[in-house]
Amino acid sequence: MIPMNYLAREASADYLKTGYWSRRSLQDPLLFGAVHLAWDGEPSGFTCLPTQADLDLDPEASYFHYILNETVEGLQFHSIPGMDGVPRFCDMSSDSLSRPLPVERFDLIYAHAQKNIGPAGLIIVLIRHSQIERQLRQVPSMLDYRNHRNAHSIFNTPPTFAIYATLLVLRWLEGDVGGLEPMAARNERKADLVYRAIDTSHGFYRGHAVPENRSLMNVCFNLANKSLEHKFLREAASHGLLGLSGHRSIGGIRASLYNAVSESSCQQLAAFMAEFQARHPSTPTSADAP
Amino acid sequence: MIPMNYLAREASADYLKTGYWSRRSLQDPLLFGAVHLAWDGEPSGFTCLPTQADLDLDPEASYFHYILNETVEGLQFHSIPGMDGVPRFCDMSSDSLSRPLPVERFDLIYAHAQKNIGPAGLIIVLIRHSQIERQLRQVPSMLDYRNHRNAHSIFNTPPTFAIYATLLVLRWLEGDVGGLEPMAARNERKADLVYRAIDTSHGFYRGHAVPENRSLMNVCFNLANKSLEHKFLREAASHGLLGLSGHRSIGGIRASLYNAVSESSCQQLAAFMAEFQARHPSTPTSADAP
Repeated sequence: MIPMNYLAREASADYLKTGYWSRRSLQDPLLFGAVHLAWDGEPSGFTCLPTQADLDLDPEASYFHYILNETVEGLQFHSIPGMDGVPRFCDMSSDSLSRPLPVERFDLIYAHAQKNIGPAGLIIVLIRHSQIERQLRQVPSMLDYRNHRNAHSIFNTPPTFAIYATLLVLRWLEGDVGGLEPMAARNERKADLVYRAIDTSHGFYRGHAVPENRSLMNVCFNLANKSLEHKFLREAASHGLLGLSGHRSIGGIRASLYNAVSESSCQQLAAFMAEFQARHPSTPTSADAP
Repeated sequence: MIPMNYLAREASADYLKTGYWSRRSLQDPLLFGAVHLAWDGEPSGFTCLPTQADLDLDPEASYFHYILNETVEGLQFHSIPGMDGVPRFCDMSSDSLSRPLPVERFDLIYAHAQKNIGPAGLIIVLIRHSQIERQLRQVPSMLDYRNHRNAHSIFNTPPTFAIYATLLVLRWLEGDVGGLEPMAARNERKADLVYRAIDTSHGFYRGHAVPENRSLMNVCFNLANKSLEHKFLREAASHGLLGLSGHRSIGGIRASLYNAVSESSCQQLAAFMAEFQARHPSTPTSADAP
């Protein structure tokens, strides 16, 4: 909907290519206008994110688009890229409600619910009124943000169950957890448990992302001895540690630590990682890591 | 999505205007091509549906589109309009799974779930492979039926809860109810209870639709004395008969009798209607009905 509504035929928008999902965001805009790649992480294997100085930004861009957290590679921005004067659009699907964020620095935020918000089938869009008014072309009614704004988000029958479940999640987050600050602290402790298990393994486990761009939501890693990965996953499952397969595009191991994952689950994973390593002492250590 | 995918700029599609919802279906196609109104029920107040002989059909139309059941006016097709050789597209949102239908006579069927299928947020599309291949223009990936077909309907993360609830509804329909034939018989009995209450009221209640086009899903009527309608709704609510307000566009009373509504609820409504009438003998009868 973004390029359809806000990218004119003769105009260009800045995009970041930082992983599997942002690469997929680059095709549809070409139906409506031009895409300028402000940074491309593919040559370095999507293992890091750009600093502000790395970006090739176009001050005339219709907007600047990026994905806050790349779930496949486990990369997460910990600062806010882009430039003043260019509307900042962000896909926060896999990061929203995990920590406080200065939403006032964004012009359009969108996120699907099914990570930290609620059941699949619901999309949350936060958009500035001034941005809505920049609508460029007439589009089908369901795809026009103005119609949803004018109808107070019930232009069509909304996914009522998902909205109700989201209400319950928000009550839990605000009441039981105490808000985004304690949620962020909990998420940092959770991620720290798993990253520490990687960093203290002397190369037995190898993190995909460089440390400064590590995601608190998705910890992606390999075993130095990749032939052990299948065994690792199978034994983890027998310990009740499920869903640890990496995305099919890169394989390996991925521990997704969304809000609903408890600290004790992370402790169990870290303990299993240490125990699994101890049972496989003949595999490479840091001495022969590349 | 239909005109975006199947209506060429220089082409025309046949549409029926049979009520509130089909009137709303006429605007978006104009962004992509031309609309030819094969029949317009608005001059007669959307109180009836066309017969096949009433239709002004274009044999060159890209497709023929209609809505099987108009929920606002309580109109339902009991035969299948259109012509051979022109792809027949139908919105079955408010009618699907209420009775057996010869799906083989359609080229594209779509229906939202939230009447007879499952929770809001799910759309079911049945489309012929040959129709999918008629794709006319490149459209954004989420709006391209081919992508959904190629990905076996999980091109994006689908609304999993709604799909699971739909599975439970289908098991109920097949197992407990015994399939579409008994469901249709039950729906006929239910509608008959309410329509009979109208027809035996000597004009105290007045059905909106002509008898031959009455909907089995939505029974829409007025009181001859419209000033009693608010009282009718209030007292019905106090008897546990809820949700009987007519759509805001036409007012009056609407009893929606979707699959989940029981026969006993319809009996209670019919009994309340007779009892309410008996308590208001001074209002107009058939003698002074127009």
